[in-house]
Amino acid sequence: MPTVDKLLLEEALQDSPQTRSLLSVFEEDAGTLTEYTNQLLQAMQRVYGAQNEMCLATQQLSKQLLAYEKQHFALGKGDEEVISTLHYFSKVVDELNVLHSELAKQLADTMILPIIQFREKDLTEVSTLKDLFGLASTEHDVSMAKYSRLPKRKENEKHKAEVAKEVANARRKQHLSSLQYYCALNALQYRKRVAMMEPMLGYTRGQINFFKKGAEMFSKRLDSFLTSVSDMVQRHGEDLTTGSSL
Amino acid sequence: MPTVDKLLLEEALQDSPQTRSLLSVFEEDAGTLTEYTNQLLQAMQRVYGAQNEMCLATQQLSKQLLAYEKQHFALGKGDEEVISTLHYFSKVVDELNVLHSELAKQLADTMILPIIQFREKDLTEVSTLKDLFGLASTEHDVSMAKYSRLPKRKENEKHKAEVAKEVANARRKQHLSSLQYYCALNALQYRKRVAMMEPMLGYTRGQINFFKKGAEMFSKRLDSFLTSVSDMVQRHGEDLTTGSSL
Repeated sequence: MPTVDKLLLEEALQDSPQTRSLLSVFEEDAGTLTEYTNQLLQAMQRVYGAQNEMCLATQQLSKQLLAYEKQHFALGKGDEEVISTLHYFSKVVDELNVLHSELAKQLADTMILPIIQFREKDLTEVSTLKDLFGLASTEHDVSMAKYSRLPKRKENEKHKAEVAKEVANARRKQHLSSLQYYCALNALQYRKRVAMMEPMLGYTRGQINFFKKGAEMFSKRLDSFLTSVSDMVQRHGEDLTTGSSL
Repeated sequence: MPTVDKLLLEEALQDSPQTRSLLSVFEEDAGTLTEYTNQLLQAMQRVYGAQNEMCLATQQLSKQLLAYEKQHFALGKGDEEVISTLHYFSKVVDELNVLHSELAKQLADTMILPIIQFREKDLTEVSTLKDLFGLASTEHDVSMAKYSRLPKRKENEKHKAEVAKEVANARRKQHLSSLQYYCALNALQYRKRVAMMEPMLGYTRGQINFFKKGAEMFSKRLDSFLTSVSDMVQRHGEDLTTGSSL
């Protein structure tokens, strides 16, 4: 593993085999990083997708609880108690849904967005600059070949000067694109640490916030409601066992 | 809406049009309840499915964070910090995964199971007994018709006695099946209140437990870790803006 941490811009003009070899190491690293980033993004999108599905599922559940009232049961005696209890549960589910939606939004903004931006901006930039650098290198090679094929006769001085100018232009262009490419590869090495950690920071903070708000919301407030529903369920269960109501 | 709350078993033998009409009200109610229960079960299964998917998604994310180390990056300089940070995040995700799995199990046991049992036991029993009652009623009608078609001549006394016995048997059978059917319909009216509330009690308790454990787990313990990661991310971000490291 090479111990260098950046491509030196001053080496770009000379474009030596050593520099090219070091460049290929940086390119390989960028390739591995692109692949890993795509896999990480996929895993994060799965978490985000599950969170979103939870929002939709709790929405549907809350609606379904309210729908009990609208069923027009042929026998409605004693239903007021069921209806009001399900209404209360529906409110609980709604409050949970608010927390779930907030978490989903937070995951989108602080987990998914940063890693997508890293992919779309940093990784795509490196790949675009690689293409441009490749084109400029080919162009330079072509003009060099053209120059070396020129006949050595004197009457061609004018044409020779033109080709030499072409070579110089191609070299300038290649140099410029290599500078940009090196810069982007160096920046990627630096950016990758943040790019890997930032989304997980967002994820963890989102979860902490979710738990904190959830614990506050559900602390003691529901105790008496749940105890009374639980008593009701228990009472009915016992009646059924002893058959006292049938 | 009738104000009765049960079918009287003593009316079953006489099987009057009034009793039949009341029975049809109970049957309509059971039909509405079956439909509503299926929709509620569907909504609850969606919540459970989302919770399960969250378990799988967090598992995959944790694995993917650990996989960074095994990527064999061509340039590994400075990666120790990224690797150890991602390891730590992976542990956090694992702990969250434990909570998610526990919640999923709790939802399965205390929300999905009771409502499935209500459907498979109570609702299916009513529907089976309805079929048996229908069969017994048809049988009774057939034997009654047979008896009424008997010629009134004296030499048929023996055959007549046989058919009369058949009618009596059919009536006993119908009476018995109506008693069972009435009982099941009465029990359903009673059970439905518990059946609607019990799963939501399980759901809400599962959530409360989840938030409580989550809030405990993430309270202060992560603060210093997150602050140091956050500082790192911030520092890198500033360096990038000023270009001091490139």
